Amino acid sequence: MITTTKEQLKLAKTSLTGSALVHWSLMAPAQCARVQRVFHFGKGKSEGNKAMKELLGGKGANLAEMASIGLSVPPGFTVSTEACQQYQAAGKKLPAGLWEEIVEGLQWVEEYMAARLGDPSRPLLLSVRSGAAVSMPGMMDTVLNLGLNDEVAAGLAAKSGDRFAYDSYRRFLDMFGNVVMDIPHALFEEKLEAMKAAKGLHNDTDLTATDLKELVGQYKNVYVEAKGEPFPSDPKKQLQLAVLAVFNSWDSPRAIKYRSINKITGLKGTAVNVQSMVFGNMGNTSGTGVLFTRNPSTGEKKLYGEFLVNAQGEDVVAGIRTPEDLDAMRDHMPEPYEELVENCKILESHYKDMMDIEFTVQENRLWMLQCRTGKRTGKGAVKIAVDMVNEGLVERHTALKMVEAGHLDQLLHPQFENPSGYKDKVITTGLPASPGAGVGQIVFTAEDAEAWHAQGKDVILVRTETSPEDVGGMHAAVGILTARGGMTSHAAVVARGWGKCCVSGCSSVRVIDSAKIVVIEDKELHEGDWLSLNGSTGEVILGKQPLCPAALSGDLETFMSWVDEVRKLKVMANADTPEDASTARRNGAEGIGLCRTEHMFFASDERIKAVRQMIMASTLELRQKALDRLLPYQRSDFEGIFRAMDGLPVTIRLLDPPLHEFLPEGHVEDMVRDMCSETGANQDDVLARVEKLSEVNPMLGFRGCRLGISYPELTEMQARAIFEAAISMTNQGIEVFPEIMVPLVGTPQELGHQVDVIRQIANKVFTDMGKTIGYKVGTMIEIPRAALVADEIAESAEFFSFGTNDLTQMTFGYSRDDVGKFLPIYLAQGILQHDPFEVLDQRGVGELVKMATERGRKARPNLKVGICGEHGGEPSSVAFFAKAGLDYVSCSPFRVPIARLAAAQVLL
Amino acid sequence: MITTTKEQLKLAKTSLTGSALVHWSLMAPAQCARVQRVFHFGKGKSEGNKAMKELLGGKGANLAEMASIGLSVPPGFTVSTEACQQYQAAGKKLPAGLWEEIVEGLQWVEEYMAARLGDPSRPLLLSVRSGAAVSMPGMMDTVLNLGLNDEVAAGLAAKSGDRFAYDSYRRFLDMFGNVVMDIPHALFEEKLEAMKAAKGLHNDTDLTATDLKELVGQYKNVYVEAKGEPFPSDPKKQLQLAVLAVFNSWDSPRAIKYRSINKITGLKGTAVNVQSMVFGNMGNTSGTGVLFTRNPSTGEKKLYGEFLVNAQGEDVVAGIRTPEDLDAMRDHMPEPYEELVENCKILESHYKDMMDIEFTVQENRLWMLQCRTGKRTGKGAVKIAVDMVNEGLVERHTALKMVEAGHLDQLLHPQFENPSGYKDKVITTGLPASPGAGVGQIVFTAEDAEAWHAQGKDVILVRTETSPEDVGGMHAAVGILTARGGMTSHAAVVARGWGKCCVSGCSSVRVIDSAKIVVIEDKELHEGDWLSLNGSTGEVILGKQPLCPAALSGDLETFMSWVDEVRKLKVMANADTPEDASTARRNGAEGIGLCRTEHMFFASDERIKAVRQMIMASTLELRQKALDRLLPYQRSDFEGIFRAMDGLPVTIRLLDPPLHEFLPEGHVEDMVRDMCSETGANQDDVLARVEKLSEVNPMLGFRGCRLGISYPELTEMQARAIFEAAISMTNQGIEVFPEIMVPLVGTPQELGHQVDVIRQIANKVFTDMGKTIGYKVGTMIEIPRAALVADEIAESAEFFSFGTNDLTQMTFGYSRDDVGKFLPIYLAQGILQHDPFEVLDQRGVGELVKMATERGRKARPNLKVGICGEHGGEPSSVAFFAKAGLDYVSCSPFRVPIARLAAAQVLL
Repeated sequence: MITTTKEQLKLAKTSLTGSALVHWSLMAPAQCARVQRVFHFGKGKSEGNKAMKELLGGKGANLAEMASIGLSVPPGFTVSTEACQQYQAAGKKLPAGLWEEIVEGLQWVEEYMAARLGDPSRPLLLSVRSGAAVSMPGMMDTVLNLGLNDEVAAGLAAKSGDRFAYDSYRRFLDMFGNVVMDIPHALFEEKLEAMKAAKGLHNDTDLTATDLKELVGQYKNVYVEAKGEPFPSDPKKQLQLAVLAVFNSWDSPRAIKYRSINKITGLKGTAVNVQSMVFGNMGNTSGTGVLFTRNPSTGEKKLYGEFLVNAQGEDVVAGIRTPEDLDAMRDHMPEPYEELVENCKILESHYKDMMDIEFTVQENRLWMLQCRTGKRTGKGAVKIAVDMVNEGLVERHTALKMVEAGHLDQLLHPQFENPSGYKDKVITTGLPASPGAGVGQIVFTAEDAEAWHAQGKDVILVRTETSPEDVGGMHAAVGILTARGGMTSHAAVVARGWGKCCVSGCSSVRVIDSAKIVVIEDKELHEGDWLSLNGSTGEVILGKQPLCPAALSGDLETFMSWVDEVRKLKVMANADTPEDASTARRNGAEGIGLCRTEHMFFASDERIKAVRQMIMASTLELRQKALDRLLPYQRSDFEGIFRAMDGLPVTIRLLDPPLHEFLPEGHVEDMVRDMCSETGANQDDVLARVEKLSEVNPMLGFRGCRLGISYPELTEMQARAIFEAAISMTNQGIEVFPEIMVPLVGTPQELGHQVDVIRQIANKVFTDMGKTIGYKVGTMIEIPRAALVADEIAESAEFFSFGTNDLTQMTFGYSRDDVGKFLPIYLAQGILQHDPFEVLDQRGVGELVKMATERGRKARPNLKVGICGEHGGEPSSVAFFAKAGLDYVSCSPFRVPIARLAAAQVLL
Repeated sequence: MITTTKEQLKLAKTSLTGSALVHWSLMAPAQCARVQRVFHFGKGKSEGNKAMKELLGGKGANLAEMASIGLSVPPGFTVSTEACQQYQAAGKKLPAGLWEEIVEGLQWVEEYMAARLGDPSRPLLLSVRSGAAVSMPGMMDTVLNLGLNDEVAAGLAAKSGDRFAYDSYRRFLDMFGNVVMDIPHALFEEKLEAMKAAKGLHNDTDLTATDLKELVGQYKNVYVEAKGEPFPSDPKKQLQLAVLAVFNSWDSPRAIKYRSINKITGLKGTAVNVQSMVFGNMGNTSGTGVLFTRNPSTGEKKLYGEFLVNAQGEDVVAGIRTPEDLDAMRDHMPEPYEELVENCKILESHYKDMMDIEFTVQENRLWMLQCRTGKRTGKGAVKIAVDMVNEGLVERHTALKMVEAGHLDQLLHPQFENPSGYKDKVITTGLPASPGAGVGQIVFTAEDAEAWHAQGKDVILVRTETSPEDVGGMHAAVGILTARGGMTSHAAVVARGWGKCCVSGCSSVRVIDSAKIVVIEDKELHEGDWLSLNGSTGEVILGKQPLCPAALSGDLETFMSWVDEVRKLKVMANADTPEDASTARRNGAEGIGLCRTEHMFFASDERIKAVRQMIMASTLELRQKALDRLLPYQRSDFEGIFRAMDGLPVTIRLLDPPLHEFLPEGHVEDMVRDMCSETGANQDDVLARVEKLSEVNPMLGFRGCRLGISYPELTEMQARAIFEAAISMTNQGIEVFPEIMVPLVGTPQELGHQVDVIRQIANKVFTDMGKTIGYKVGTMIEIPRAALVADEIAESAEFFSFGTNDLTQMTFGYSRDDVGKFLPIYLAQGILQHDPFEVLDQRGVGELVKMATERGRKARPNLKVGICGEHGGEPSSVAFFAKAGLDYVSCSPFRVPIARLAAAQVLL
């Protein structure tokens, strides 16, 4: 931030032309000591530059920059954000001397343009626009054509024709009245509509100069009626009112709210850009357009834009006439076109990025109105970054900053071919729970999803909400739609883990399972109907919309190799199956940071039956019998994962969820009957045990290592499966690095207990199989207490992995399943800036992460520290973990490239 | 702890006699440099003293002390705990030179007694006992009569008669065989029983000398059969084996487990006390007894004990003969009695406490066998402490250490007149959830409890478990018995708050509500049957057992005034009603630290109806209407509490629990019907709202300030009720100091929001009522994140109150409601030392308390900091809070005196 006059001077001088220097030197000494508040710009003559965004706003800084590097910018001046700050601090009074400085600025523009504000013979018209350091809706819009009154309009008419003059005058009265004087736009619109009705006309453009002149009179009456005083006809008065209106818009309730929600702080205020008007609507040698210096969708190196002959900027936006492409402009007005192409080259090599440009041609002369970095798609971003390096335009490090997490996210999921084409088919919108596009036929149960998928059909699974029982069907589906559940509901988390599209919490969806019908708003859909989901926007779209697949193009590969050259933080993936592990590996994961053993338990009927028998066992003997049945399943699962991750570490978490999660929801009776008939158990006993398993707060209940400590035979079975699988894979020449992770540890005693059990089993297996392999035992740090006593825990842990999901739940006291009741209110009121389950809470949870890392490494200097919560794939959180000195993050396979990028960007 | 030879020497010298000094000086220089490992004692000749418990164990240190101050103690020596440590460290090998030192010690005893071990003509018999610095079951018991073999027995027979000699020999063989050689006692007992059966005898004492001699032969055969070698007849070998057995018992599994469970660490080992035998069974001029120097039940200053003529200590314990009181001893053997009385005086004035003494008279000569501080009841403890100060025996500060928390707890609750009298009526035992005794007739519903109570009956409320709906009935009952729920279940917490007896989690209790029957084990009880509960032991007793009421005697008042002279920490109480507030005040509370506003909501049908309408309101308007109905109730509640606490602060917590806690459990339909008929609401809407309120993890859900932020009108109503009540009481001349506490704050923004709402209402009320009063706004610190960001929170908090219940839940990730599934296993396995909901976890939760206090005070130096969880009444936790620099603790009214005492004791 620039705060002293000296700094500003230094910065300003770097791009000052001689004449601007003269201007400075002409000032009285007293003024020199004062902070400069008004900054001129005009072709080759700028007092500002692009580095001065804090002081001049983004728009003003870029106008100054363009002018200073010699582009034709309509001359003008920027009143600084500091002036706005002084205005606010003075209780909304124009600071002493500021008006005089503005008038001086005006005189400079008048001289430059050889025209004068309010002079009918040489009329100067102005645009007045707000512009803060960051783009901010809620502040004042543009006022165009400022400076008109009856006399000036007459003068303008004499020069440029009646129609032009009175249309401009009418528009100015409306815009100024509405934006500056707070008169409702509808009051003006009413008069316009009445006039058209009276004349039997349809389009504004059909109005004659006489009609427009009459409207001007009517508009002036609107002022008197609304404000009790006439329209201010003094152009200087108009300018002053407009500047004040911009200042006042800085703390309008909308602007304040926007800043609060977007956590925008530390800004001084908004700047005011006062600029000479140029007109694209002065006949067929005039026109206006917008362009990107490269194609923002594909990244192709070709100007991409639109142009309207004989039009003003607002006409392009309003969409009344269909704009032409830039080739039409080249044919129509070759000279301005050549200058524009040249300007684009200059801007790209100057800004070192793809630019978004607004321009106007007035009577064959090109004027640059705005430039800023251009928004682009993921595909565009990667191609542009790679191309610009190849063109020698930017360094690799600069290119790495040109691609955002969201860009990669797009590239890693299938997209709709034409998102704007389906808008009329959108029937409702839910939460964008897992990005990408999914198109398939509706089914209502996980079983159906699997059955249809087996027949080669694409299905969308529609559920009120999902549970762990549904995972098979969720995996078989191409997309998931749920009526309930937030961004971190079961459906959302599982879907994101698989990179599968999901729209959740769609409250207008009513599922009638019994009838296999879903009612969405007023539409009734049946099993087999086609539906499309946009998981990136939450849109639910009728019918079968065309898709384009995820493309990992050559450019992306090149780009990611540059990413990996820079980053230090390792990126692993959370994966529970060999398929997920392979996906992760393809996306560049350097190992598995979290393999959830329980997800395997649902993989088949046989497995879940054995799991339930284990849970329901009333004696150690019965439990051991069920565990013996599970052992071969677990072993073969681990073998598959070890094989997929040959040469890379695989971190396996012991059983974590509360046992009742493995029971069927609702229809317990069937399970009890089956179990009794299979095992000969007493029905009442089994029911009593089911009841005993229920918990008031399962999240804080009988789960994690509490299970393995209460039933050591469970840990023994899992450890045995891991070591037996590891040795059998080693025997097949596969390199295995198993790391066993104990969940939900809060005391060193808990970890000590489990480590003993694991090491004893390891030694047994090594002896029995006649082979010893290396392995690590570590723990999740996901309970606040574990972070506090991390030094003691590290004594028996070879690695820590932060479970930031649970750690966030407990540090905040928020249940992920229930937070939907108040989180939306908290976010709307600015009590929280982010959903802490999406973006790591650096101040609170982050302090625990840092504390545990420090304490853990103090006790064990070579402790390996990572994180395997959802935050491991969120860029700002990844940056935090990198700065906190963690060794790795582990995230969903589909977010691995994003984490890699974030880990690199934090170092740039 | 004494660690260097020099320190030991210094200590030892202070009580050394000349002869002991000679002994030291006679040692070779090399030996002098070595750490002393064997310490003699005998009347007037001790190398140890009572300060040397670490080194000599409690028993050894006290024997040395008694001897050194001139009491007749059978001479002996103590092998130090350091020797035990060396033995363990050397892999269970006798350290070099130790045996020689023991033999030297033996020679000293032999000289002193003019007898020799193993010498049939002058036989010396020994007792060998273990004794660590703290009393520890699980280690070796006593071996008596060591030194006997055939020859020595013959010699002893010649001196003291055949029967005495062979009975002693037989007992020794059994005891030594069992304790030292690990031969099951049953193998000896078998022979004894066979002998009695063969002879047709009933009592051991009926056996003749010949019988006993024959038994000795049989017992020796038992050795050969069990160990494959004969009984070691060499007395020195016996001594060595016994010493080793004591050393080995130090790390027996039982002893290790005991130390682990009781968190006994830092001890070196056990000492071995080898002492010359004296015999109380040498005819009618001999005998043995135990006594307390004052009455341990009442505290009366009179010797209180038992005496058996012609008996050994084990006979007293075995209870075969009924002992006589000490008056009988005075009559029977006046000289030893006078010496005993004199010894008691000496010991009391020496130890400055009431003592527990064992003694033996051998042929009219008194021997002191053991002395230690005497255990006592609460009543006894207070009287003894106060009397000893009045007698000039101890300083007040010393007296304060003589009363324990448990003592006060007894005094503050009614007790059974004769707890040993009802043992045969105990039908089952549950958790001792809230101490004291309760006797009443059984009822099964809260309504019945209130109705019967209104008729003047004492009732015991028996429920499967209790819920907030039951509080009226719980309050009306004299005791509560539940089948489910732990020490921190709803029933337990509420009952403790009221000082009402409660036995919870009594799994053998089966309540059949429909039939108004409870089945306990095999007993079926009906409504109206009498039942007695002992909340201090968890016993459930049939019938109407006689009670004695809680007595706050004059001594207790005196004692508590001394307590208050010392302590600095303020003690407040948790109280929700004027009655509780008055109780708290009577118990010395200096204010209300926690007034839970929600408990008032259940106080009447009208109130709960209004609460439910508030919860169910679908619009702000409906909610406001329900709140308007609640306002007068809340106001009058606060008026009552302000009145009761005239002149003292009252801390009121805003609504905290999840809203669904206010809905009826199970029978929602009735409520829905009532509500719809009253408010005209649609039944489906109400049902949908009920469903919406349900939560997966209510503990981490929509509660605390999350309610007040989502529904600011709720906070407004509560704040209004508080300020209106405060001003109306002020107008009546009552001094009010309201402190409003915002619950469950995790971010400064949350608190800021609520503080704004409260201050706005305050200003409104002050303006409307034309009066301003002082008040404070603060917050609970009960979420881990709040402790981490305490500095930011303190910016808008005038006080912090740690809610250590919830803080413990979240810091550990334990749900109080579900922890019963694994906590018992954790405690049994030593993974946790204490239930963290009973005893504050100082390392984890305590660190957050300290951190928040420091950070909070850094931001606001005059921040008032207290705690209002259950831990506020637990002595070791109170001590921690005092040391952490808190200003106050707040606890249940019945634990206020305990907290006061703990706060004083920590400073002593």
